[in-house]
Amino acid sequence: MAFEPLDPSFAARVHRSFARQPFLASLGARVTRVEPGEVEIELPFRADLTQQHGYLHAGVVTTLADNAAGYASLTLMPPGAAVLTAELKLNLLAPARGERFLARGRVVKPGRTLFVAAGDVFAVEGGSERHVATMLATMAVVEGRGISD
Amino acid sequence: MAFEPLDPSFAARVHRSFARQPFLASLGARVTRVEPGEVEIELPFRADLTQQHGYLHAGVVTTLADNAAGYASLTLMPPGAAVLTAELKLNLLAPARGERFLARGRVVKPGRTLFVAAGDVFAVEGGSERHVATMLATMAVVEGRGISD
Amino acid sequence: MAFEPLDPSFAARVHRSFARQPFLASLGARVTRVEPGEVEIELPFRADLTQQHGYLHAGVVTTLADNAAGYASLTLMPPGAAVLTAELKLNLLAPARGERFLARGRVVKPGRTLFVAAGDVFAVEGGSERHVATMLATMAVVEGRGISD
Amino acid sequence: MAFEPLDPSFAARVHRSFARQPFLASLGARVTRVEPGEVEIELPFRADLTQQHGYLHAGVVTTLADNAAGYASLTLMPPGAAVLTAELKLNLLAPARGERFLARGRVVKPGRTLFVAAGDVFAVEGGSERHVATMLATMAVVEGRGISD
Repeated sequence: MAFEPLDPSFAARVHRSFARQPFLASLGARVTRVEPGEVEIELPFRADLTQQHGYLHAGVVTTLADNAAGYASLTLMPPGAAVLTAELKLNLLAPARGERFLARGRVVKPGRTLFVAAGDVFAVEGGSERHVATMLATMAVVEGRGISD
Repeated sequence: MAFEPLDPSFAARVHRSFARQPFLASLGARVTRVEPGEVEIELPFRADLTQQHGYLHAGVVTTLADNAAGYASLTLMPPGAAVLTAELKLNLLAPARGERFLARGRVVKPGRTLFVAAGDVFAVEGGSERHVATMLATMAVVEGRGISD
Repeated sequence: MAFEPLDPSFAARVHRSFARQPFLASLGARVTRVEPGEVEIELPFRADLTQQHGYLHAGVVTTLADNAAGYASLTLMPPGAAVLTAELKLNLLAPARGERFLARGRVVKPGRTLFVAAGDVFAVEGGSERHVATMLATMAVVEGRGISD
Repeated sequence: MAFEPLDPSFAARVHRSFARQPFLASLGARVTRVEPGEVEIELPFRADLTQQHGYLHAGVVTTLADNAAGYASLTLMPPGAAVLTAELKLNLLAPARGERFLARGRVVKPGRTLFVAAGDVFAVEGGSERHVATMLATMAVVEGRGISD
């Protein structure tokens, strides 16, 4: 499915909004790919981001998937709009163990007020990827409420 | 609904497992209440945990709700078992703005291999609480796989 | 939490919309309670509504919870609006076996364009209720698109 | 991703279990495709399956997606096991209007006790397909509890 962005500077817009998120900087995440309806985020492993069994914390996994899905949606939103997660649902598929993690978000269905988006998180170790989580989420297009992305 | 814990040291067990989570220490979260089937977690606001509009990041909100629901489940699990989130679903209800945040988890239905649990996150500001997120999740009882909580 | 309905004829409105749903009539469901932010639906057991192990089909359980949550939301929507389910998430808690089933929906958070609502389904047998499913859902307030409830 | 079924008669097994579901017969649904990890179900439109605006009821849409995802999972389960939906999450993408509906289920991740599966529902009208719903679900592998599929 090919999407047509309403905002020609959609990629710069994603990078700029991402850079304004203190929590993503704290984690050490960065955007590695932006296409219309698709965004990839990368996070190197860090021991302070783990849970009690040594895996990347589900909260961090969720953060990656949520942002990948949210920014995938933002690439197709009109200029001036902000993106807010209305709700998200994540299934954990395998222990999140790896040298780094890739979250790939994609728009399932754009809309005027709501987007449905998906996100998948992969753990990369020794050159191979393992699918560790999958998300299905609803993103709200926020306009006229004093915030933008 | 009153639950009967299988492990008499359920409260110490939650505190001990919580203390082994590097990510929760990074966030500055702490356990403020443990009852059979119920756990409360508190997090003071910190600017480095926010998203681009200044609210607590949805990933942090999810982390709090997930851990409150997961540890509420752990209070009712047999000794030696570990708790893992199988899946979670979170609805954001209001911007997560506040001086501190409280996540309250509770068991909806315990089971032999799966628990259904809920979590609610409240933003506290000037002495009043605002409901900012609600979660419904499935927690797996993990036994015999080399991990425990 | 006490809700104030915007439409004084909220109860008649729920009954009227419910009566316009052919599928609910096919199932034999009826509305047994309407309060601001709360709706209860009842369904007597019927063998043609079961799945392969003799329980009420998860699709029927979902239908009950979805409509209870949706109509609970409608009680708080402005006159002229229609309610549409944006998304729903249901956890099955126990086999849905019983003489009849009660679905209780309630509004968690009303909103201008989105409501968050919950629904719980109980199986009634020999005078006692068993909690068989719980739902968390997002309901859209639809205005100006040619449909109403 | 190619899956290897543990049960060589996986296709006959799906058809046999499907035929034992009274509710699916009531709806008029039938299985149109079974592959390892994939199942397609078809449902012709019927006016008695609609909601108040004339669309296929969300409960019926859910039933189709749930069964497609559940039976996709069953194709990969060991002989003697039964499949039960632990939880499901469905996003409605567009009004479910059409001459007939196709639900396509696929396994995202098989497991020993839990499967993660997805389901998509399409409305077919005048030869073209419209994506009307997407589901992400957790299916339980039930063994030794007196039921099988």
